[in-house]
Amino acid sequence: MRVSARNKLPGVVSEIQSDGLMAKVSIRLGDNHIVALITAESVAELELKVGDNVTALVKSTSVMLAKA
Amino acid sequence: MRVSARNKLPGVVSEIQSDGLMAKVSIRLGDNHIVALITAESVAELELKVGDNVTALVKSTSVMLAKA
Amino acid sequence: MRVSARNKLPGVVSEIQSDGLMAKVSIRLGDNHIVALITAESVAELELKVGDNVTALVKSTSVMLAKA
Amino acid sequence: MRVSARNKLPGVVSEIQSDGLMAKVSIRLGDNHIVALITAESVAELELKVGDNVTALVKSTSVMLAKA
Amino acid sequence: MRVSARNKLPGVVSEIQSDGLMAKVSIRLGDNHIVALITAESVAELELKVGDNVTALVKSTSVMLAKA
Amino acid sequence: MRVSARNKLPGVVSEIQSDGLMAKVSIRLGDNHIVALITAESVAELELKVGDNVTALVKSTSVMLAKA
Repeated sequence: MRVSARNKLPGVVSEIQSDGLMAKVSIRLGDNHIVALITAESVAELELKVGDNVTALVKSTSVMLAKA
Repeated sequence: MRVSARNKLPGVVSEIQSDGLMAKVSIRLGDNHIVALITAESVAELELKVGDNVTALVKSTSVMLAKA
Repeated sequence: MRVSARNKLPGVVSEIQSDGLMAKVSIRLGDNHIVALITAESVAELELKVGDNVTALVKSTSVMLAKA
Repeated sequence: MRVSARNKLPGVVSEIQSDGLMAKVSIRLGDNHIVALITAESVAELELKVGDNVTALVKSTSVMLAKA
Repeated sequence: MRVSARNKLPGVVSEIQSDGLMAKVSIRLGDNHIVALITAESVAELELKVGDNVTALVKSTSVMLAKA
Repeated sequence: MRVSARNKLPGVVSEIQSDGLMAKVSIRLGDNHIVALITAESVAELELKVGDNVTALVKSTSVMLAKA
């Protein structure tokens, strides 16, 4: 399956915190890390666990830029 | 200035394509790259050019995860 | 590949309008239709054309509700 | 009132789960279903309940496409 | 019609720039101003013109905060 | 630091509700008010409290318009 999202960042799940409807998933991405806030239902459906290889998908319209 | 966005990815602008109201800015981020679709007005206001150090800001609610 | 997005709506591409960096893709979805604004680059990369079977992905945090 | 969102999908509320600040609202939409993650405050303000006719609003910039 | 969006900011259209598929609409909001990037099709469908009273709708999940 | 977001609305924090992973922050903005749904982690990291001067950042692609 190919996805239109311009940003597909491969990483490894380093932490999952679930609370009620929501879950915060941290992904190690080389020297950076990415945080995804998704539903707890998605965590269950994808059977996400620490150590999983995942891809973070971000639409290019959702990215802002900051410059010092 | 501190920003609430959980994802602040530092990188270097590698390409800027402007067309009418919109601009597509590519950022090199270690081995990855990120694409931001912003207004051409923002590119002008931030005086963005290839080689600039920038930070890509992404709210954690805008990140999806995919698993093979 | 499984995606965390809660909304995965299968449909058929009914129209593609490209203009510069952007493209507007219309998808027929039973009696409804969905419009996606994506990059022209994504249309090229996915080789999207009228008649293609696609899935519209929408994160649940991006959905608002209106009631009469 | 007319709204600029390109996607206005009429459906029927099939389930509401509230937890703290957030609520997950499921909407039946013909053969599909849509999930909206909104604030519990919105659920109260719109007096949403199972069986209500609602319209799911999604901006076209929030839609991604996947192709097999 | 009531909308779940937490942010409903009433203002007056002060400028509309259309270019291809996209349009940038500026709204005066007391001492502030808001910019909306919507489709040119939405501008046509809502018959938006300078001087119109409109409401800017923003989902609370789309708002970030910055602090000096 | 300059940010590409077109909408930078200065205001004062009037209320913070935290619940698990999420927090709802209300900002007074002249005669209007804005609600931001951010992570509780962001509230802690920015040391947000009632009375703080903050700027609400909203990307122009996240704004919809409604007209009566």
